[in-house]
Parts: sequence; C-alpha cells; structure tokens
Amino acid sequence: MQEQPKTKHIVIIGAGFGGIRAVRALSKADVRITLIDKHNYHLFQPLLYQVSTATLSIDDIAYPVRAMIKQQKNVHFRMGEVNTIDFERKSVILATAAVAYDYLIIATGGVTNYFGLKAVEKNSFGMKNLDESVTIRNHILHQFELAAYEQDRDKRRARLTFIIVGGGPTGVESAGALSELIYLVMAREYHTLNFKEVRIVLVEASDKVLAAMPAELQETTVETLIRKHVEVRLCVQVTDYDGERLSLKGGEVIPTRTVIWAAGIKAAPLLDTLHIEQDQARRAVVNEFLQLPAHPDVFVIGDAAHYEYAGRPLPMIAPVAIQQADVAAKNIKQLMAEKPLEKFTYKDVGSMATIGRNAAVVHMGHLKLKGVAAWLIWSLVHILRLIDFRNRFVVFMKWVWEYMFYDRLVRIITRQ
Amino acid sequence: MQEQPKTKHIVIIGAGFGGIRAVRALSKADVRITLIDKHNYHLFQPLLYQVSTATLSIDDIAYPVRAMIKQQKNVHFRMGEVNTIDFERKSVILATAAVAYDYLIIATGGVTNYFGLKAVEKNSFGMKNLDESVTIRNHILHQFELAAYEQDRDKRRARLTFIIVGGGPTGVESAGALSELIYLVMAREYHTLNFKEVRIVLVEASDKVLAAMPAELQETTVETLIRKHVEVRLCVQVTDYDGERLSLKGGEVIPTRTVIWAAGIKAAPLLDTLHIEQDQARRAVVNEFLQLPAHPDVFVIGDAAHYEYAGRPLPMIAPVAIQQADVAAKNIKQLMAEKPLEKFTYKDVGSMATIGRNAAVVHMGHLKLKGVAAWLIWSLVHILRLIDFRNRFVVFMKWVWEYMFYDRLVRIITRQ
Repeated sequence: MQEQPKTKHIVIIGAGFGGIRAVRALSKADVRITLIDKHNYHLFQPLLYQVSTATLSIDDIAYPVRAMIKQQKNVHFRMGEVNTIDFERKSVILATAAVAYDYLIIATGGVTNYFGLKAVEKNSFGMKNLDESVTIRNHILHQFELAAYEQDRDKRRARLTFIIVGGGPTGVESAGALSELIYLVMAREYHTLNFKEVRIVLVEASDKVLAAMPAELQETTVETLIRKHVEVRLCVQVTDYDGERLSLKGGEVIPTRTVIWAAGIKAAPLLDTLHIEQDQARRAVVNEFLQLPAHPDVFVIGDAAHYEYAGRPLPMIAPVAIQQADVAAKNIKQLMAEKPLEKFTYKDVGSMATIGRNAAVVHMGHLKLKGVAAWLIWSLVHILRLIDFRNRFVVFMKWVWEYMFYDRLVRIITRQ
Repeated sequence: MQEQPKTKHIVIIGAGFGGIRAVRALSKADVRITLIDKHNYHLFQPLLYQVSTATLSIDDIAYPVRAMIKQQKNVHFRMGEVNTIDFERKSVILATAAVAYDYLIIATGGVTNYFGLKAVEKNSFGMKNLDESVTIRNHILHQFELAAYEQDRDKRRARLTFIIVGGGPTGVESAGALSELIYLVMAREYHTLNFKEVRIVLVEASDKVLAAMPAELQETTVETLIRKHVEVRLCVQVTDYDGERLSLKGGEVIPTRTVIWAAGIKAAPLLDTLHIEQDQARRAVVNEFLQLPAHPDVFVIGDAAHYEYAGRPLPMIAPVAIQQADVAAKNIKQLMAEKPLEKFTYKDVGSMATIGRNAAVVHMGHLKLKGVAAWLIWSLVHILRLIDFRNRFVVFMKWVWEYMFYDRLVRIITRQ
C-alpha cells in the first residue's frame, strides 16, 4: 500500500514446494508479492504418511508460512481460498475480496483422484493433506481399541484388515510404516488380540509397484513388503467400497473398515474454473516458458502444470515444482526487463522410497541402492529437506527414539 | 478371562493423574485390573495452556495409556465411555457392554463449570481437554489471519480482543503465554497490523488472582501481567456472551470474538447418574477412607471426590488425586486382607504458576519465590513430572528453542 505505484505486484497462489520456492526466487526483485494459501502452513507432504502412522506430529511436517517469509520484506501472506481468476481484469477472486495482479503464479498443487468412484471417495481415506492424515491415524488406532473387545470374529477381522490402494511411493511407504506400527508396536500392547487376525493388503492396478524405479528395485520392494507381512496384490482393480466391503474387479470382496486411497492424484480444482486447456489429470497445459498460452502474464507450475518433456508429461512430484518455480520467477523478471524468456528443462533427480527399518530403495542416475545404505540416504535426504533446524532436529530425535525403542509416541486419538 | 475365578477384579474409571497412580499402586497386588477411559491417552493437564498458545504439540502432553501400562501384567485398558454404574450388581455400564467389578475406583476428574451460563458455555472456549486446547489455538491464529485483512476498524478490534475469564493458575498462565505469543512472536510477522489494537483482558470475579497464594505473590502476579500488556480486571463478573459481545455485571460490554473460560471446574457428569451425595461442584462426598459411605467397595478420588480436610474441602488439583490414589489402592488391599483401613491425610505440596519468560511465583511451606528463581523451579518441576523421557526431552528442547528464538512453532491452523 505504501509502495510506489510502479512496483509490479506478483500474486502466487499456493504455499507448497513450488509457491515457497517462487517467493524465495523473487526475494531480491523490486516487486510486491502476495502469497495466498487456504492454510496458514507449508506442508512437507512426503512425510504425511508418518503422521498417519503415528511417528511424527503435525508440527514436525507443517510450518507456519509467516514464519518462513518473515525475513523477506517484499512479500505479504494472505490466508484464503481462491474461488477463481478473472484473467480479463487480472484479478484473483477470494471469497471476501479480489486481489489484482500484474503477474500470477499458479502453484495450487494436487488433490486425491478417485477416478469417478464416488462410493470410494466417500468411504475411503485420502492422504494428501494434514487433516486426512490425522483422520487416518485416529481411525487406525480406534479400530484396534474396538477390535480388542469385539467378540464377533468376522467383525473383529474386518476391523483388523487394512487396505492400501496404490503402489506408488505413498502406498508403499504407508504399507511399510503401518506394518511396523502394528507388528512392532501395537502387538506388544494389545494382549487380548491375536495378531494373526491382522491383514495389511497393498492393492495395485498395474503389474508393478514404484513404476518410476528399475525392475530390480521394484522386486526388492515387493519382497521387503511381503517380509513385513504386507500382502501385495498386483493387477487388481478396485471397483467399489461401501465402508464395510471392498469390491475388486472380477468379483472378489474383502470385508474391511479401512481403505486408504493412494492410487491417484489430480490438479486442485481451481483450474477447472478457468476455461483453459487441461489434461486428463486436470492439469493446465503450459508452453515451454511455463505460461498459459493465452495469458502470458500467468505461469503455472508443479502439480498444477502439464509439461511435456522428452515425449512424456512430467510426474507430479516436488522436484518438478521446485525447478519450475525457479524458471517461472526468472521469466517474470525477464518479462519485466523486456528480455527473452528461458525455456524450462527438467533435471531428473531420481527417486527413493523407504519401506521400513533399514529398508529403502534409491534410484539416482545410474545408482541403484537398496537395504541399509538406501535407508540411510533416504533418512539423510529427508532430514536435510525439512525446512528449519528445529523440525530437523525434533524429527531426527523421534526417528532415533522409534528406531531404538520400537515405540511410536503420537498414538493419540484426537477425534472420533 | 484365563485368570482363576478367585482373583479379585478392580475397575478404575479414568486414566488421569489419580487413575494412573492407582494402577501403579496396585502393580504388585494379586488382582486383575481394568482401566477404563474415554480417551486412549493420559493427559498432562497442567500444560494444556501451552498447546492453546502454540508452544507444545498434543503428543508432548498426551501419552498413550497402553504404552504407560505395557510393563504391568495385571492390567488391561479399555477405551470407552461409562454411562453409569449399577452398584447393586457391581457393574460398570458402558455404551456397548457391562464390566463387573469387585472393587471400583472412580477417578473421572473434572470438567469446565459455567455456573449455568448457557450462552457463555455455547460461545466461549473451555480449556480442560486436548480438543478444546487445539480449538483455542486454531481460533486465536485464525483471528489474526482475518484481522490482517479486515478493513472495518471495529470488527478488527473485536478480532484482536482476547478475554480470559478466571484468575486461577490456568487463567494466569494462559494470559501470560498468550501475551508472549502475540507481542513477542506474532508482532514480528503481521506487518500490516497495528498491535496497539490488541487487547488481552484477564477477568476475575473475586478481588485477587491465584487465591491459594500469599498476598505478596498475588501482587507480583498482577504486576507481571500488567507489564505484559494484560489488563487485569478484578471484582468483575461475567453475565453473558453471545459470541460477539461479552457482558459484565454493571452493564459494561466488550466486543470480542474470543472468550476463554477458565473460571470454574466441577466433577465429570458420571457422578450425577449415581444418586449419591454431591457437593456444589458435583463432587461425590466420601468418608475418611475415600469410600462412598453406602458402598464401601467403591472409592472416589481426585477431582471427583469431596473430602473435607482441616475444615475445608480439598482443591481440585493433581497432588490431591495422586495422594488419594495411593490411599484408595492401599485400602482395597486392606479390604481384601480384611485388615483395618487407612484414613486419608493430605500433605500440602504448595502451588506455583508461571506468567512467562523468567517470571513465575512459587509457594511451598514457608518458601515464597518469584522471578527467575521461581521460573527455574517451575520449569524443572514440570519437566520432571512429564511422564516419559522422550516427552521430557522434546518439551525441554522446545522450551529452550522458544526462549532463545522468540518463536512458537506449533502455529498450525488445523481446522476452521
């Protein structure tokens, strides 16, 4: 408001990996920035599954946005949900206000994709945000409390059957962590239960887990999961779930009270309001400079953007969002300076997943690792990527504690 | 179920300070114990206000009951809410089952007492359980987000006015912690707000705060709060609150969106179903051995019990519950051995309250302390009382972090 009228106003929607990186990339620019998010925190999504499985608390992986940007003087945070964007008037429409922009970065991320399975959407648990993770944690712990005093064997088994749908990193990591929560921690505390009645099933529609990994690491992953008492069911498609019975294609039915849906992701629904070209995952198709073709002052990055690279659309993962944020910020500066824009090129940083204690798979360039070495690399990378020192340190201490004492301390049922 | 029929069954309702202590006091007894609680965790209530004010996470002060008792082989935990007790049949009635007992310990604790002010109960925030504390945290943080973009000055001031009712330890500690959250942390992040518009008011109906303390420490407390920009209003009674306007006796009205009610506590409602003698705070009147006079196999302890000592009923505080748990457990063993019962005598352990950084008051016997010394004692005592090592250590680290960096990291709005 006190700024001179000529200072350009950049609005960034979304405080995820992409949005935060774009804010930082513009820290030295002579611009005003407004960062908008419906939550007041940045979320470290790759560790959400550790909240669901009672290793970490929410504040270990969620960090107040205002605390992250307080050193940067050219940015204001505004908490609010964006309803739509008026490209004509260059205005972002919130429920209670409109925010004008000169340049816009859309970094709204992804949401769970149920592929039109309405009943599954209603009765299963997504795992894309903090509330969902806490809900899963509460639900799993509650199933054990109810099973402990359930006399009916069938009902008890349905409470002790946990289905995870989707063999990507989220599904694999959740299955491994859930196995360890149940067999290493809960088994020592529920003396009245027979843990032979517990089932953990990982269901995947394709014929492999961790599709981005080399075949030998996929095999290692499946073997490790099986050793952890996870039934891995490949080439199996979910057709329906009514809250008590999961139906699979071909007629199989599994009675269960818990289905965790990690089988798909699509772009957040804001893009659906914009009358722009979208792909199957509802992502906005952008040009080589990450602009919307019809609106060169609007950039789309991360899970919200469809960008073809080497003949295939880029995956919806954090490294893509971070790399695109840098280029979008750079290109806004180029536009202001009336200089030529930079084309986006993607650097593949590889992928990794942890399956449990001393067990992970890592693939970077020609490097393929598994077992303890991969697990140590995974731990180190995730600790270093956690944003501030305190979180790093607390998370590290919690992991050490859990590793040494086979304990999980966030086993608190907060809502029922 | 596999136990021999002659082993006596002791049911303990409530996993608070009293219930957990009673379980431990019976660890070597040849009995079966069932511990029942509606939550799956033990809550360290004295630090609830640090959850409300974003210093600690829920799992720092809540600990899974099953983890606490897993070493003790004669006890089972059952999560469930007790509807009533059938003294005739010696049976505890849950929603889905009945649990027979030979001896019963009622340790159901306290709930917020609104003294019949229905509108206040509906619109203000209690602070006796974990969900309430998280709700307060979310609400306070949300008020700042809304105020930051509120153009109407009156509406903005109402969002920035925080009323705490009740000058006991909870009210005083909440007011001090809220002041530091706002003036030391939030003030550095909400650049568009004028913090002169913030009001924190502590309202107390009597003419003093911390009634159990010596007069000079009461004065120190009020002075410290005033220095922290807390308005301390003594001899003021709340008559109504509709969610937007707080009415005080005499006609004064304060526009505010936040009223935290720490003005009263009464026994949990289970006792109201039992047709027994209760005091004004709904506590069960017990005899000198802590039994219900008409039911000598039923003991009541802690906040649920009314026990006259030195001419006055004992206060509803943790040390009373813990001391009574020991005597109730002892007396059950005496009953089983057909030996004479032990009379309860109370050892006053003093009281303490912290008002903020380097500021606390401590009263133990003839010792009266204030300032840094009192604050160090307060910190040490609370760290030592936190149940397990990990919590102790994490809480200690968080306190050190906050002290050094004037930061609060649990500022996460989880629900709206």
